[in-house]
Amino acid sequence: MKIKIGVVDTTFARVDMAAAALDELAKLPVEVERRTVPGIKDLAVECKRLLDGGCDACLALGWVGGADIDDQCAHEASLGIQMAKMMAGKHIVEAFVHEAEAKDKGELQSIAIDRARKHAVNAYLLVAKPLELTKQAGRGLRQGRAHVGQLGGKAP
Amino acid sequence: MKIKIGVVDTTFARVDMAAAALDELAKLPVEVERRTVPGIKDLAVECKRLLDGGCDACLALGWVGGADIDDQCAHEASLGIQMAKMMAGKHIVEAFVHEAEAKDKGELQSIAIDRARKHAVNAYLLVAKPLELTKQAGRGLRQGRAHVGQLGGKAP
Amino acid sequence: MKIKIGVVDTTFARVDMAAAALDELAKLPVEVERRTVPGIKDLAVECKRLLDGGCDACLALGWVGGADIDDQCAHEASLGIQMAKMMAGKHIVEAFVHEAEAKDKGELQSIAIDRARKHAVNAYLLVAKPLELTKQAGRGLRQGRAHVGQLGGKAP
Amino acid sequence: MKIKIGVVDTTFARVDMAAAALDELAKLPVEVERRTVPGIKDLAVECKRLLDGGCDACLALGWVGGADIDDQCAHEASLGIQMAKMMAGKHIVEAFVHEAEAKDKGELQSIAIDRARKHAVNAYLLVAKPLELTKQAGRGLRQGRAHVGQLGGKAP
Amino acid sequence: MKIKIGVVDTTFARVDMAAAALDELAKLPVEVERRTVPGIKDLAVECKRLLDGGCDACLALGWVGGADIDDQCAHEASLGIQMAKMMAGKHIVEAFVHEAEAKDKGELQSIAIDRARKHAVNAYLLVAKPLELTKQAGRGLRQGRAHVGQLGGKAP
Repeated sequence: MKIKIGVVDTTFARVDMAAAALDELAKLPVEVERRTVPGIKDLAVECKRLLDGGCDACLALGWVGGADIDDQCAHEASLGIQMAKMMAGKHIVEAFVHEAEAKDKGELQSIAIDRARKHAVNAYLLVAKPLELTKQAGRGLRQGRAHVGQLGGKAP
Repeated sequence: MKIKIGVVDTTFARVDMAAAALDELAKLPVEVERRTVPGIKDLAVECKRLLDGGCDACLALGWVGGADIDDQCAHEASLGIQMAKMMAGKHIVEAFVHEAEAKDKGELQSIAIDRARKHAVNAYLLVAKPLELTKQAGRGLRQGRAHVGQLGGKAP
Repeated sequence: MKIKIGVVDTTFARVDMAAAALDELAKLPVEVERRTVPGIKDLAVECKRLLDGGCDACLALGWVGGADIDDQCAHEASLGIQMAKMMAGKHIVEAFVHEAEAKDKGELQSIAIDRARKHAVNAYLLVAKPLELTKQAGRGLRQGRAHVGQLGGKAP
Repeated sequence: MKIKIGVVDTTFARVDMAAAALDELAKLPVEVERRTVPGIKDLAVECKRLLDGGCDACLALGWVGGADIDDQCAHEASLGIQMAKMMAGKHIVEAFVHEAEAKDKGELQSIAIDRARKHAVNAYLLVAKPLELTKQAGRGLRQGRAHVGQLGGKAP
Repeated sequence: MKIKIGVVDTTFARVDMAAAALDELAKLPVEVERRTVPGIKDLAVECKRLLDGGCDACLALGWVGGADIDDQCAHEASLGIQMAKMMAGKHIVEAFVHEAEAKDKGELQSIAIDRARKHAVNAYLLVAKPLELTKQAGRGLRQGRAHVGQLGGKAP
């Protein structure tokens, strides 16, 4: 039976992160189930529903606005995702983009796409090839930007 | 059997958000169950009770005062709502209005009404028509204010 | 069978809030179970024990000192109360008084007594007469101070 | 059967708080089970294990360093303790000492010892003599420093 | 049957903390199960999976970047770890390194290695030799830096 990955995104996001994630997952031997919710705080329960319904792992694609209240919402969303993971006993890889982390729209788009792609692969590896992750342990990998590498050590 | 949406509001709120939400839900093929609690921190358990009692989703209408302590209460209320969602395995759409987010009373009222209406529809779509939400994925939708649209992309 | 309300207060509090709450509950057709714990962080589990033991709702009377650490304790206490409510599926009405919210001792006492009384009634209404709360929905009710009323609307 | 109190302390602490607590508990008709963990974040699960293993209540003796990160650790530890209490349905009395709350080493030691002793007694009273706590309700009791008393009211 | 310790690290880390931990555990009579996840927020559920799968305790090796958002992620990761511990009823020793806690790369590496080694031993002691920890109770032990000792008291 094929591995099944759930992908959940939001209508609040300003970049179509799911398109990037789905494109990446299409290259892998996985089945995909996709849902869209209004905002980041709705991601956790939707992921839990997908995991309870048979998905092996989920990718939670979130968009965080630039105001202080948005940061608090992201924090609450993340804690909900921790709860969902604990109850389902499965991974939910969180790919959140914060409007404040880029200097302009172009950089924001590029961060969003890169993070969605790399974490889509991470969701797959966690289920299908955990040893591939161990080979990269402690190497300073980043999603959204270039890898930073190990301190005085191995390249990523 | 008709879809059942729970609507919970507070006596603390200074705008009758439930009236707006109920008006919106009256246009949809749903049954509504409505409750009122004192303040935002009481919303989560009331929603959980409604979900356990047969509601398919809930709308939590909260009002956040202008003091620092109110922000903390809203945070606690939101975390309670995350817990309630996880335990019930169903959606609770959170429509909170913060007194500090508007410059005057008129704007505050308009935010509260718009947010209550749009999230009432979201609660319905999550249960009845999830694909409608997916069509709007990543389009920068907002509740309380006008949609902001996709970055360099599709209109909402 | 009579409704049973649990009342939990602390030895840390500097006002006898339970006396006010019990006085108010004595006017209502309820049975009362009362416990005292050292501080606010002990309230949640005591309420849960009372709810598991048959109480229909609880009133948690907390006192928050004036230091930063006290605010953090109140936050942790509130999150514990959210957990307790979720697990019991019943209401715990939180009546916390912060030393910093009043300008002098007299005002602090008056806030504490007013909040304890009004929330004692709220705990009763949530169980016995939820429709009474719905009649006051969105009317700007306050506990501890005078009601503020609806924005450009109905009196409380 | 004798009441059983669990006492958990840390190797991170700079004062032997458990010695003070154990000395106090030796004067009471209780059995004691004692464990030591590395730091505050390890307290919650150890307490839960003791409660699940038959202890009637626990005393969690924590030490909080002077850096910002230590405050955050204390917060996480406290939330873990709230979770443990909810799941066990029993009290865990938290006696945490913050390095920043004293002006010198002597005061810090005296706070730690006083708090450990008084909360050891509280853990006992919660299980064995809850009415003794109710007699002191709202009297401004403090652990670590002298009691502050009721506002314009009864002495502690 | 041999004690089994789970070791979970991340690809985000910039130092190979797992190598240090595994080296330390190789000196002890334990079996080790090792996993790698993308970042700190993925540690909790992986540890829970290992504990549910038979590990007696886990070591969670986390790396916290230097931005504000990294601190928030660490906080969420820690709360997830508290949840995992509560549900599994077993210890997860958290060894997190914050980029901001060192003045240069060399110090950061040395903190990471020292903390991983000492906490690997702590995970073992919690399961196999709890009395060894009690002998060091209240002695000001530190991981990442030198022990600070008891206030006016015993050496570590």
